[in-house]
Amino acid sequence: MIQITLPDGSIKSFVNNTTAIDVAKSISEGLARNVISAKFNDLVIETTTPLTSNGSLVLYTWNDDEGKKAFWHSSAHILAQAIEELYPNAKLWVGPAIENGFYYDIDLGEDTISDKDFKGIEDKMLEIARGKHDFKMRSITKTEALSYYKDKNEYKVDLIENLEDGTITFCDHSTFTDLCRGGHIPNTGIVKAVKILSVAGAYWKGDENNKQLTRVYGISFPKQKELTEYLELLEEAKKRDHRKLGKELELFTFSQKVGQGLPLWLPKGAALRERLENFLKKAQKKAGYEMVVTPHIGQKELYVTSGHYAKYGEDSFQPIHTPKEGEEFLLKPMNCPHHCEIYNSSQWSYKDLPKRFAEFGTVYRYEQSGELHGLTRVRGFTQDDAHIFCTPEQLDKEFKDVIDLVLYVFGSLGFENFTAQVSLRDPENPEKYIGDDHLWEKAEQAIISAAEDKGLNFVIETGEAAFYGPKLDFMVKDALGRQWQLGTIQVDYTLPERFDLTYKGSDNELHRPVMIHRAPFGSMERFIAILLEHTGGNFPLWLMPDQVIVLSISEKYEKYAKKVLNVLENNEIRALIDNRNETMGKKIREAEMKKIPYMVIVGENEEQEDKISVRQHGGEDLGMITAQDLTNIINKEINKSLKTF
Amino acid sequence: MIQITLPDGSIKSFVNNTTAIDVAKSISEGLARNVISAKFNDLVIETTTPLTSNGSLVLYTWNDDEGKKAFWHSSAHILAQAIEELYPNAKLWVGPAIENGFYYDIDLGEDTISDKDFKGIEDKMLEIARGKHDFKMRSITKTEALSYYKDKNEYKVDLIENLEDGTITFCDHSTFTDLCRGGHIPNTGIVKAVKILSVAGAYWKGDENNKQLTRVYGISFPKQKELTEYLELLEEAKKRDHRKLGKELELFTFSQKVGQGLPLWLPKGAALRERLENFLKKAQKKAGYEMVVTPHIGQKELYVTSGHYAKYGEDSFQPIHTPKEGEEFLLKPMNCPHHCEIYNSSQWSYKDLPKRFAEFGTVYRYEQSGELHGLTRVRGFTQDDAHIFCTPEQLDKEFKDVIDLVLYVFGSLGFENFTAQVSLRDPENPEKYIGDDHLWEKAEQAIISAAEDKGLNFVIETGEAAFYGPKLDFMVKDALGRQWQLGTIQVDYTLPERFDLTYKGSDNELHRPVMIHRAPFGSMERFIAILLEHTGGNFPLWLMPDQVIVLSISEKYEKYAKKVLNVLENNEIRALIDNRNETMGKKIREAEMKKIPYMVIVGENEEQEDKISVRQHGGEDLGMITAQDLTNIINKEINKSLKTF
Repeated sequence: MIQITLPDGSIKSFVNNTTAIDVAKSISEGLARNVISAKFNDLVIETTTPLTSNGSLVLYTWNDDEGKKAFWHSSAHILAQAIEELYPNAKLWVGPAIENGFYYDIDLGEDTISDKDFKGIEDKMLEIARGKHDFKMRSITKTEALSYYKDKNEYKVDLIENLEDGTITFCDHSTFTDLCRGGHIPNTGIVKAVKILSVAGAYWKGDENNKQLTRVYGISFPKQKELTEYLELLEEAKKRDHRKLGKELELFTFSQKVGQGLPLWLPKGAALRERLENFLKKAQKKAGYEMVVTPHIGQKELYVTSGHYAKYGEDSFQPIHTPKEGEEFLLKPMNCPHHCEIYNSSQWSYKDLPKRFAEFGTVYRYEQSGELHGLTRVRGFTQDDAHIFCTPEQLDKEFKDVIDLVLYVFGSLGFENFTAQVSLRDPENPEKYIGDDHLWEKAEQAIISAAEDKGLNFVIETGEAAFYGPKLDFMVKDALGRQWQLGTIQVDYTLPERFDLTYKGSDNELHRPVMIHRAPFGSMERFIAILLEHTGGNFPLWLMPDQVIVLSISEKYEKYAKKVLNVLENNEIRALIDNRNETMGKKIREAEMKKIPYMVIVGENEEQEDKISVRQHGGEDLGMITAQDLTNIINKEINKSLKTF
Repeated sequence: MIQITLPDGSIKSFVNNTTAIDVAKSISEGLARNVISAKFNDLVIETTTPLTSNGSLVLYTWNDDEGKKAFWHSSAHILAQAIEELYPNAKLWVGPAIENGFYYDIDLGEDTISDKDFKGIEDKMLEIARGKHDFKMRSITKTEALSYYKDKNEYKVDLIENLEDGTITFCDHSTFTDLCRGGHIPNTGIVKAVKILSVAGAYWKGDENNKQLTRVYGISFPKQKELTEYLELLEEAKKRDHRKLGKELELFTFSQKVGQGLPLWLPKGAALRERLENFLKKAQKKAGYEMVVTPHIGQKELYVTSGHYAKYGEDSFQPIHTPKEGEEFLLKPMNCPHHCEIYNSSQWSYKDLPKRFAEFGTVYRYEQSGELHGLTRVRGFTQDDAHIFCTPEQLDKEFKDVIDLVLYVFGSLGFENFTAQVSLRDPENPEKYIGDDHLWEKAEQAIISAAEDKGLNFVIETGEAAFYGPKLDFMVKDALGRQWQLGTIQVDYTLPERFDLTYKGSDNELHRPVMIHRAPFGSMERFIAILLEHTGGNFPLWLMPDQVIVLSISEKYEKYAKKVLNVLENNEIRALIDNRNETMGKKIREAEMKKIPYMVIVGENEEQEDKISVRQHGGEDLGMITAQDLTNIINKEINKSLKTF
């Protein structure tokens, strides 16, 4: 008999050579049907591997990331078999599961694969899958393995040569065999739906001096319905790609001459940014923040003091030298050192604290050009940054107040689905962290109790704290269910030490303040990108670049259209006019594409009655109303979404 | 007889050996009394030098810069004589006139000069001056000159060794002789008032490897009253020094760690900046500008294209390299290349123009540390920049509109005393300028007619245009009569060429737009510095960091003070409270020092009657009124100064 410990801590006895599937069956038949992968003592195993010792077992279904991984890795085997059958000269290299699906890198010889071949590959894969072939692992000696691939596949030979004899395994299913470490679903029959997504070139071993192989990307599901939903999501995500929307809505652009990863904000985008900034400024003012302005460079010494240079210096934008005086400056990667110097420009008393210095501070961080992506991965971005300098006693309240501010920001921008993560010290490695034990405990407790008090849906991650203090990160789920990290609140004991920040306590002695770093948006660039993808460009009305477009039926009504525009603009509504000599259909289509929430149509009837016909984005008709009525409708909608702070 | 041409173009005949004074006498006795310096054929001469050929003569009085220069240079001779008499071991080097006064560099040997010696030197100078000694120039051979100073003064010997024989002159007055090129007043008696201002160390020949000499600074005037006025102005300028006020009013600070010449804006200063920016943004919005946002760096290539690299590259902040990819970026010295790239991100039609892109763009320019001065000479500053892209036909109107905006800005900020300078091409060197002759003429004419139309007090400076186009600069006179260059409006034909900017004309062909660069403030830093010195910190009320301070007579009235504060804050008035346990006298003194326009005093009477006692900055008492009354007074004052645009 062997003792198996399950994730809930319970221990059960089983006969030797029991499999993961057997264990699942002992729990329920339903579970056994759904188990597709397992880990035994933290090692990935097959669900059919006989267990021969005591140990911990975790069972995975499709709903677990590990389950999906096994599913997609197994699908890569099926893809490989299909390719071998369709392209007899193909030589396989490797085929892992990835975040969404899997790929296989293949040397196709003289052959090529293009879009029109995808259907054939999918059909072949489904045919194999329907055969319900078991995946079976077997150990093999290095010599046998080498002789199997010799003269057939130099890529596998190269892989095997780097493996240690005694650790090598093959996986068989149907007529197909692959060198493989394991981690498969029980059999091919579980794969009910497959889709080849794309092909790309990929250098062997990622080295551009090597031969370019063909990488075939695919995805698979246990149900056809799930594939259909996934493809719809993919289609929707493409439509909502912030790079595409940013162009269509004329928000931002990039210039090769200015440089990669350095966005140029066009008028509509700059205005949108400013509205977001003003929205936060207003809330911050109420919360007692004070705005400051600091330069975008600082002496290298400043970042040596702060510790940023030691951590990022070599991989960052390199120092800026001055012509004669031998000075060295750096583009600022963070605003905190500058704000510490502002704090240090006065001597504070405990009565003056907390000081809350806020700045929309543009920082520059080097990213490799291959890593750059629209506004989500850039080389220059503006943080909605603030640093709170407070006494240890004030930390608790300050932290809660920051959570309130973050929740207000998310609420006003339509992010309703979010979770939080509290990152604490690793208690087993106290040497990794700076600062007094007592203060750490106090701060960690403050964060947890703040998260509880505010009713956050949060998880605690031990060992994930920054070396300078514990933190709370917010993750939002967008309308497509994708998760993004946004705002962060971090406690910091290091910078006050490094910059020798002090305040005079009620005991007339000098004490160290605590610092809180916080950014509800994170960065303006990233936040706007996520907001674009979340809303598909249909921003909350208060944020919309253009709220109303006035469409005149013909040039005859241009004057009346301008009168309507004036009424709207005098009511602080952002409106524009389309007086072009085009059909109303075309004008409406273009206004729809620009996501303008309200289309106002003016013609003979409207002018005679001094009214307007209003159509909402997406099609709803509000009928004939006055311009003042529309103003009221808009203001009501704005007041509803923009809560007061 | 010789023919003398006077500045008005008239030609008069005089006998040979006539002097400048004689010519003055021939015009009027009064002029002759006031003439203290002269130029003959563009060379500085003594007023007593016999003229022996035909030529042009200019006569200068104290009211001319050249007159003051001769006056102060002659005073330096008097200073030198006084020093020689008081310090027998002194060895003189050189003693020129400067912008305000003069100095002499002296090797004092074992002696030193300090504040307490100034009176003695002044008395000795006045004693010499009262002797009414004539200044007399004489030619001397190099050998004679060297033998005069040999063994006595190695500094003069060094000067003479570098002069050519036949060009050397001495100047005698009283018992004193100096090596001198000339340019003196007729005699010492004209100097009626002198003041030694300071002493400083100065290396011989400005080389720090040489001996340090003593530099004695002084100033002198033809009337005692003028000296008194000058010293008062100096005292007032010291009080208004923006570096001193910036500290007292907590507007900005500098940090050695962040770097020299890189201001950090403190909360009150950042808020003031933002008010100025919002004020201009509002006017710009009405004038059809669109805000954009661009990064603070750009690829080196961008500035090679724009021509900035060729002009400034080597003397600027050096390029920023990236770790692996071999890219080179520069801190942006100007915003124009970025705005050109924004223009270039779309194809425009003549119907879309003008496009007016505005940005409060922070730029970085290297200045040697010795040149840095408070906020007026910095290494990073924010321009209130905008670039107008228009058709040549639109230039005239656009230029006039910019002038209107600049005049609105100056008017709202209390700068009433200003002049303008129109800078045109040098018609004799057309090769120095880029762009079509016809366009230049049109642009120059547009600027002149705009300046005339707007009733500007302007001068035309031929040859002062930038190589890329003509311009209009505004010079304001501050409350102390000092002149500062502020806003600028420049026409540019070069960048549209270099960046290949185009628009589609009504003829369906591509054309080049014209660019206007303009910045009414110039830079936020410099403008605020000048505004501080102009107003002595008493900003227009709408701009004031704190408009009201509420002073409670004792802690008993703290609650009522807070109630008053609330009323004011609810009326959007920037108010703060001083509840400290200090005497009212001290509280008022401190509020006066902070220049807070209205002091509200609350005690028993005020609380009983639900009123406040109001005292204006500077002392005027407004008596007991309600908080609402004060709100009305403040709003009325603001509306008066802040014209609508």
